[in-house]
Amino acid sequence: MMRSTLIRALRWAAARLDGPAASTQVPTSIAEIVPCHARVSERGGPRLNLLLPSINSRHYFGGIHTAVVLYREMLERFPRSRIILTDAAPEADALLGFPDHRMVSLEDDDPVPRQIVAFNDRYARTLPVSADDLWLSTAWWTAYAAQQLSAWQQAAYGTCGKSCYLIQDFEPGFYPWSSQSYVALGTYRPEHDIAVFNTSQLSDYFDHCGIGFRDRFVFEPTLNDGLRRALSSLSEAPSARRRQILVYGRPSTPRNAFELICESLRIWAATMPDAAEWEVVSAGELREDVDLGGVRIRALGKLHIDAYGELLSTSAVGLSLMVSPHPSYPPLEMAAFGMGVVTNPFHNKDMGGVFPGLKSATEMSPVGIAAALVAECQAALARNLRPYSIADAAHAFVNGEGIAAVAPGLATAMLGR
Amino acid sequence: MMRSTLIRALRWAAARLDGPAASTQVPTSIAEIVPCHARVSERGGPRLNLLLPSINSRHYFGGIHTAVVLYREMLERFPRSRIILTDAAPEADALLGFPDHRMVSLEDDDPVPRQIVAFNDRYARTLPVSADDLWLSTAWWTAYAAQQLSAWQQAAYGTCGKSCYLIQDFEPGFYPWSSQSYVALGTYRPEHDIAVFNTSQLSDYFDHCGIGFRDRFVFEPTLNDGLRRALSSLSEAPSARRRQILVYGRPSTPRNAFELICESLRIWAATMPDAAEWEVVSAGELREDVDLGGVRIRALGKLHIDAYGELLSTSAVGLSLMVSPHPSYPPLEMAAFGMGVVTNPFHNKDMGGVFPGLKSATEMSPVGIAAALVAECQAALARNLRPYSIADAAHAFVNGEGIAAVAPGLATAMLGR
Repeated sequence: MMRSTLIRALRWAAARLDGPAASTQVPTSIAEIVPCHARVSERGGPRLNLLLPSINSRHYFGGIHTAVVLYREMLERFPRSRIILTDAAPEADALLGFPDHRMVSLEDDDPVPRQIVAFNDRYARTLPVSADDLWLSTAWWTAYAAQQLSAWQQAAYGTCGKSCYLIQDFEPGFYPWSSQSYVALGTYRPEHDIAVFNTSQLSDYFDHCGIGFRDRFVFEPTLNDGLRRALSSLSEAPSARRRQILVYGRPSTPRNAFELICESLRIWAATMPDAAEWEVVSAGELREDVDLGGVRIRALGKLHIDAYGELLSTSAVGLSLMVSPHPSYPPLEMAAFGMGVVTNPFHNKDMGGVFPGLKSATEMSPVGIAAALVAECQAALARNLRPYSIADAAHAFVNGEGIAAVAPGLATAMLGR
Repeated sequence: MMRSTLIRALRWAAARLDGPAASTQVPTSIAEIVPCHARVSERGGPRLNLLLPSINSRHYFGGIHTAVVLYREMLERFPRSRIILTDAAPEADALLGFPDHRMVSLEDDDPVPRQIVAFNDRYARTLPVSADDLWLSTAWWTAYAAQQLSAWQQAAYGTCGKSCYLIQDFEPGFYPWSSQSYVALGTYRPEHDIAVFNTSQLSDYFDHCGIGFRDRFVFEPTLNDGLRRALSSLSEAPSARRRQILVYGRPSTPRNAFELICESLRIWAATMPDAAEWEVVSAGELREDVDLGGVRIRALGKLHIDAYGELLSTSAVGLSLMVSPHPSYPPLEMAAFGMGVVTNPFHNKDMGGVFPGLKSATEMSPVGIAAALVAECQAALARNLRPYSIADAAHAFVNGEGIAAVAPGLATAMLGR
């Protein structure tokens, strides 16, 4: 009580000092769309420009990695290329991941064929751009930047380089309907850009929204190498699993619906016979156990890929939600390892049947998700906790080519030949 | 500089004190869906139940008022009715607005034919419900409550009362994709409920989303009485308007896109010839002038309806955005008074041509909106600042029946006769 009083007092003091200025400062800018200005570059010939927010380790997650993989797959066709960082200058250890690239200054029009340039601090500065620069972007504000640069090309040279947009989710959905969601939506130019969609379900969703890209490539997600090794070492005669529910719990990412997972688990605990005999665990972001009253999520912390593979190989049931048309990787990983997995549908997305154990809860409510989870736990018990058939090595998620399959065609399309 | 250092130090101290507790408390609940429990009521006969978050003046905005109007229009057909408040108990002055209703206790099964009951504090408490209770809800969590109560009816009596959902926006869009947006989406049950849509554009949007309500009523927005009076007193031979842009600026409501308005006005000021000869004003929420650098939004404060009508009668141009399939009232009001108005399209929504002066910016970006605004200002100058034809008294927005038109049919549908 005293502590909370003190906290309030400190906050009040901070607000009073900060207050008068803050109260007049309603937000009047969209932070992501700081203008990009260009200047003439005399260095001709096609150059692939990859626009990324950052390559620093604290920003380097799946989406950025996938864009880098696509870029690298295309380099063979592009003797000249440039990585443009829109949000953060690269740190020294981040550059170690690009030994074939050299960091160049924004002020120079450097001839080095593989370069990285920081364009985050760009007020009153320009990027050298030739008529032959081509654009590959991913997060919506990197696409916004690429579209400004290609509009500048059109104005300066009367022509602009092809622009490719690697679309890994419907990003306006990351915001409430707002300035940001609206400008993000405006970056989808189905008549202008080449789209590369991460999953056909996402591509279909864009069609449903009336955003049908004329030129598009689509690839499907694949299991990462570490998990593929773990999967191949799984016994041919699978042993019984633990009475354990593995939860994909990311409180920091709204579309993974952590609150909805918790509401569903409470109902599951109240309706599942012998619920107390099950353990509920979560790996990754969750740092401390979460007591839901009647059921507890045990936090396993961040696991090495081998330990995560072991968890997928020993748990009976999984729960992983994704409020998006993208399926997300965790429910596919869990199901590839033979777990019974409850996930959610979303508009055109329905993952039921993609793997034998992958189930899509039909009712969009805590009660509906809890019912699907009870059914999956009971099905696991009825199978004596044996996994679903994991003789699915031929499945595209396990053995597909993924993004590598689309790179050659995309390079050809961008080069216009 | 010293002040900001001190502010940071105070905040840091507050966070250190608050930190350990806060870090363990990841959110595990969806606050809007506190369970609703019912008990048997012996009082039979159809009763119309209106579920509202609150009737208190600080919550009583357009959406709630519209629901109350619909409810009142239907009372003639329902000798018994009840207003159920899900979020806040009514304050004394709020009850003055319902002199024909009596506040009753949740614990009683009161026979009074018109009643208001507070159901906000409902832990371990129940609402008396008979087999004949019928449901009318509006905000998504009031629909969630009604759906729980009608499911209880089904379980207790083997039948449930018809349920009507007054849909005034696509509410999942008020959140990023998340637990809340997903559960809100789940409240749309196109096979179960009767929908009443506020505008055909919103109804069409639901169809586009694959949520096609089988049973539905649709009404169109209408000018409120105060503005209708102001409009009828406008001169037949309209006088020239002021070089003034009226902005609908609501920084607190993300879908009104205040940041995007500001970004657009900056570009407008840089590209509009003699921009400095124009005034930019905003009535309502904005309490202090906003200096955008190059252009200033003058805050007029909250205006009486007559003063607002005067503003609509003297301004040449309006700018009003709504990131939603709902058109929103302000751009229609501005256009009904002959102003040239820039608004935005959204999926199936395109307001261009609804009134002569109503224009839909084609490009979804600050540059696109600024270009539309420049064009509208130049068109106003070309007309010597005369308004667009305001001989539109026959327009449905000006003289339509609005929600009153659907009430009789809805009452019949709910009564099933």
